[in-house]
Amino acid sequence: MNGGVQPASKQSMRRHNLALVLRQVAAGQSASRATVAAQVGLTKATVSSLVEELRLAGLVVEHVPENQGRVGRPGGALALNPRGAAGVGVEVNVDYTAVCVADLTGAPRVRLTERVRNRGRSAEETLYAAGRLAARACAAARRAGLAPVQVNLGVPGLVRDDEVLHAPNLDWHRVPAAMLLKRGLGRQPLEVSVDNEANLAAIGEFQARPAGAGDSFLYVSGGIGIGAGLMVDGTLFRGGGFAGEIGHVTVRPDGGECGCGARGCLERYAGQDALLLAAGIDPAQPADPDLPPVGAEARGRRGEGQFGLATATSEGPVDQLAALAAAGDEAATDALTVAGRALGVVLSSAVNLLDPPEVVIGGIYARLAPWLLPILQEQLNSRVTSGRWRPDRLQVSGLGAEAAVRGAAGAGVQTILRDPSAYIDLTSPAG
Amino acid sequence: MNGGVQPASKQSMRRHNLALVLRQVAAGQSASRATVAAQVGLTKATVSSLVEELRLAGLVVEHVPENQGRVGRPGGALALNPRGAAGVGVEVNVDYTAVCVADLTGAPRVRLTERVRNRGRSAEETLYAAGRLAARACAAARRAGLAPVQVNLGVPGLVRDDEVLHAPNLDWHRVPAAMLLKRGLGRQPLEVSVDNEANLAAIGEFQARPAGAGDSFLYVSGGIGIGAGLMVDGTLFRGGGFAGEIGHVTVRPDGGECGCGARGCLERYAGQDALLLAAGIDPAQPADPDLPPVGAEARGRRGEGQFGLATATSEGPVDQLAALAAAGDEAATDALTVAGRALGVVLSSAVNLLDPPEVVIGGIYARLAPWLLPILQEQLNSRVTSGRWRPDRLQVSGLGAEAAVRGAAGAGVQTILRDPSAYIDLTSPAG
Repeated sequence: MNGGVQPASKQSMRRHNLALVLRQVAAGQSASRATVAAQVGLTKATVSSLVEELRLAGLVVEHVPENQGRVGRPGGALALNPRGAAGVGVEVNVDYTAVCVADLTGAPRVRLTERVRNRGRSAEETLYAAGRLAARACAAARRAGLAPVQVNLGVPGLVRDDEVLHAPNLDWHRVPAAMLLKRGLGRQPLEVSVDNEANLAAIGEFQARPAGAGDSFLYVSGGIGIGAGLMVDGTLFRGGGFAGEIGHVTVRPDGGECGCGARGCLERYAGQDALLLAAGIDPAQPADPDLPPVGAEARGRRGEGQFGLATATSEGPVDQLAALAAAGDEAATDALTVAGRALGVVLSSAVNLLDPPEVVIGGIYARLAPWLLPILQEQLNSRVTSGRWRPDRLQVSGLGAEAAVRGAAGAGVQTILRDPSAYIDLTSPAG
Repeated sequence: MNGGVQPASKQSMRRHNLALVLRQVAAGQSASRATVAAQVGLTKATVSSLVEELRLAGLVVEHVPENQGRVGRPGGALALNPRGAAGVGVEVNVDYTAVCVADLTGAPRVRLTERVRNRGRSAEETLYAAGRLAARACAAARRAGLAPVQVNLGVPGLVRDDEVLHAPNLDWHRVPAAMLLKRGLGRQPLEVSVDNEANLAAIGEFQARPAGAGDSFLYVSGGIGIGAGLMVDGTLFRGGGFAGEIGHVTVRPDGGECGCGARGCLERYAGQDALLLAAGIDPAQPADPDLPPVGAEARGRRGEGQFGLATATSEGPVDQLAALAAAGDEAATDALTVAGRALGVVLSSAVNLLDPPEVVIGGIYARLAPWLLPILQEQLNSRVTSGRWRPDRLQVSGLGAEAAVRGAAGAGVQTILRDPSAYIDLTSPAG
């Protein structure tokens, strides 16, 4: 009814201004209180008191030059606290469960992964185990000085209001996923949200992009399922909530039946199982027994660890496929050609429909990019109407299988950054 | 760099507030100056002076109750002036050119249409003729007291910066369309913009929706070409500028060759020419000689006229197809079944990818909806992953072939409403 200006309450002003200042600190290059004040258009006194509140809550640190005293804090450099609040990402997929804890800067600090066949287990069992894994990661994060607060769970299925309505590759139907994950988390004061894993992977891809990279792209994540996320000016496009089901875009209207009940879906041609079967590799082979079932590590900022997810998934059957293709195995290269053509047809259709400035392939497609890229480019060249005006659209994700769990952790961090007052009120003893 | 608050200049404040007040008048139910002031959060005195400026420019009218004098204007009802500035829509398509002039309320006031084979003529000739037709419509509009200011031209092709890069069904390549249309318009003080006709049709559909209808939908326009427009919260999604080329989404990867150079495009199965040929109707038959080549009329608000576009296109070969199908002709119903299945496959893919709350079929598909709808619904039911959670997505546009030209005129009106100060500065003698 009323599109006009509303008087802001003192409470909502504080909320707004805390977020404003924190966002400026996150964006800025070691700005001082005075610089931030000038940038956000508030008085120095107001900004100083807001910064103080953010500092006491552990969200912001202030580096005072060594030759200056602490009195008056004349021009200390402000930065997000890499030892403060943290976001927790959990990904439950068909053949693995993964956890990542990211600090406020978005850097992954703890990563855990478990190679496990979640298809065949009950949703209760799978989510309880995922909750336990996340609890272990949170404990490791706390030992490293972090305070995990927000958990985002990614699943390969349709999600509404933290419930998984339908995840065909897990055989889940109407699973209250947030509630079941919380059981495994135990009595930790953690907020839990649930989202589609391809949505989170697209967010992860966006957060990991180098400065200056575009903020509008179509991200396509290959795995046992195939999902997509359309990023538009840095915001994920969700349609009515179920957008991104690119795995069920039709390649051949009268093709073979898909697990979803339809015929000729992309997943039937370019999904991990279809690819492996076509290449003569057993998609249901057990996980490598030499690989420890769980790799856990708390590490310094941006450090590289031993048991990252990349290791866990690159040791799997997809790596076998890549090795065979590299050796010139005919079944393997034929399988990749069939998958690449089907994926190329669907990407071309998506580009004709949406014209995303970039198309980023991730998940197993990142690993298989050397064989897929030329085939995809050929399909785009021959099928995209606007192709000649935008010839170089294809990109390969640098995150591989980690995109979803990194994005899930990063989305948790974003929740804190968007509304620091909620975090402060939650954690301060005064309430 | 600076995401903070900026001091507004007096000039930009006036501009902002004029638009704010005009928007409120457009949205409101005969609000008074006092009501508008309360709604936008400005003082009554400020609003009164802004309203006065809008009234003098002919953008707003104030209906003072008969039993009140004119002194003081205590509470006259404000409304958009239906005899003020007007937007002009021009659509150049393969087999017709159409013009529509809409008043500030969005009501079409003048409509002209010319059944003409624009394929085969040069772009220069076609656009000059379209400009002449628009000039006639503007003259009729002026006689009805309107002031046409903004022309929006819709074409079935890829458009960038008012240039048509590529319109395969018109055989246009790199056509400076705005410039060529202006030649036909003569020395009229009109701004000209160019857009894709399916984009404008989606805007037309949005503007014609009843109050309370959703503001997010996928609009699909059938004709000789097939275009789409994705409306997201009332804003058209354009991707990198070329979104909506649904006619070139692949139905069968190895299908017949399309005019665009690719194989198996939707247009090959569900485009107007493919449909007519499959039904045994000559798509290139001349326009009905009994139909006057140009029907022109200036009429009252929301009046219905004799030579509307609906008449012009419903007398064509598509009407013949509908008549044959209604009579049970096998070739006609078979042709509609083939087209419906192809369109259904593509709409299902688009829904899997984008999950639009509604899908609206328009253009010739609106005319053919009785035969197409059941087939489309069947395809959606069997192919859309989230289908069971959103079963009733399909809608039929009420605008038929008029959507694009109505949208083009409405987009011109929106340009005025968005920035009335530009219009005032353009038209006031003081500059």
